[in-house]
Amino acid sequence: MIDSIRERRTIRKYTSEDISQELLNSLLKESFRASTMGGMQLYSVIVTREAEMKERLAPTHFNQPMVKNAPVVLTFCADFRRFSEWCNLREATPGYDNFLSFMNAATDALLVAQTFCTLAEDAGLGICYLGTTIYNSDKIIDILKLPELVFPITTITVGYPAEMPDQVDRLPFESLIHNETYKDYTSSDIDSIYEYKESLDENKKFVEDNAKSTLAQVFTEVRYTKDANEAISKNLMESLRKQGFIK
Amino acid sequence: MIDSIRERRTIRKYTSEDISQELLNSLLKESFRASTMGGMQLYSVIVTREAEMKERLAPTHFNQPMVKNAPVVLTFCADFRRFSEWCNLREATPGYDNFLSFMNAATDALLVAQTFCTLAEDAGLGICYLGTTIYNSDKIIDILKLPELVFPITTITVGYPAEMPDQVDRLPFESLIHNETYKDYTSSDIDSIYEYKESLDENKKFVEDNAKSTLAQVFTEVRYTKDANEAISKNLMESLRKQGFIK
Repeated sequence: MIDSIRERRTIRKYTSEDISQELLNSLLKESFRASTMGGMQLYSVIVTREAEMKERLAPTHFNQPMVKNAPVVLTFCADFRRFSEWCNLREATPGYDNFLSFMNAATDALLVAQTFCTLAEDAGLGICYLGTTIYNSDKIIDILKLPELVFPITTITVGYPAEMPDQVDRLPFESLIHNETYKDYTSSDIDSIYEYKESLDENKKFVEDNAKSTLAQVFTEVRYTKDANEAISKNLMESLRKQGFIK
Repeated sequence: MIDSIRERRTIRKYTSEDISQELLNSLLKESFRASTMGGMQLYSVIVTREAEMKERLAPTHFNQPMVKNAPVVLTFCADFRRFSEWCNLREATPGYDNFLSFMNAATDALLVAQTFCTLAEDAGLGICYLGTTIYNSDKIIDILKLPELVFPITTITVGYPAEMPDQVDRLPFESLIHNETYKDYTSSDIDSIYEYKESLDENKKFVEDNAKSTLAQVFTEVRYTKDANEAISKNLMESLRKQGFIK
């Protein structure tokens, strides 16, 4: 068993210690052993170390402080450009300006990102995923100068941990597994699946602080609202069109 | 460093040894420590062990022999259903029937899938990703009885290795990394990036066997053609609509 996975927690505060180029490159290089669609390696990683670039990226991640405080910020991109350029130079007509190809490249990028995180944590670093990458993809595309057929999928901040938060809760194991076919949840299943999460003091405080009556309302009315999700979905589709992945 | 990542290779042939329920559950449970959007755990795993179910799934994966030969087949699904049902039962109106929510849940599913693979390989098992999952999503949805807001993202076959293939090649490390901003590739960059891959005997044989003049043509004219990609993209969008993730 890999203890660093069992013991992991997301780290949002980092010491001022830099990550050496040697260590970063060795972790990235090993992460590229992850499985990849047809051996095509449909990803690129943009490494942000310069303070000015972090300053520019920060608002696109809703000013989460990790962006400016982490020594290294990595943006993992779906990339069908390199492969398509190769095709163009080899009397082959690439056909990767479509949604399936986007999903294939996004999958490649995420498998590499997660492998990098596992390796980084095992080496004593701490990481935090920024799901905001696809929320403001248009702005990130501009800042990182991503050309057509390249799309930012996720961002990781990484550094030496300056905190050791408690491990966060997980839903009961059995509720995430289905044998042979999907077994739909009854109301009483849902009650017991979420019972522990709802009972936690931190979550009760979360409900109170937001003046809501249930924890679910904090998600639907504060954190991930229908209006925001729909507006961002539209923006995301528009970005995919602009980058050439949807007609 | 985690040697099992550095030394990894995809395994397509498995011994007849079964994977114990205890080992499988312990690997899955640890994989659920992977990062997840807002702590929501937007995924479900469908475990296939029954021969009859493998038989039915096989054609959806273009009859790749691993599906029937592996002791365990795992389909990792994006799942906003469980969470939305919880909202419905807690006076909260879920707003997750949209494309952004699909991408968030797909990301969660892929981070868990990759963490599972790392753990499984470290425990001496071999895995193979089946990218075909999103190619025939509609049929897989039927077979696994996936309800609305659940979508199959990727499939992994897993078992004890009955082969030890050579490690496959990777593109030069530097060609996958961009410092600060994306540096577009020149023709001579592309030539040197793909030089090694094109020089391999197995790839030269691949070109010859397919009666093509370049390796790129094997990809664009045989393996991943424009026509197929476009037809599958349409089918995938249609499936997303049917499962409630696109209006």
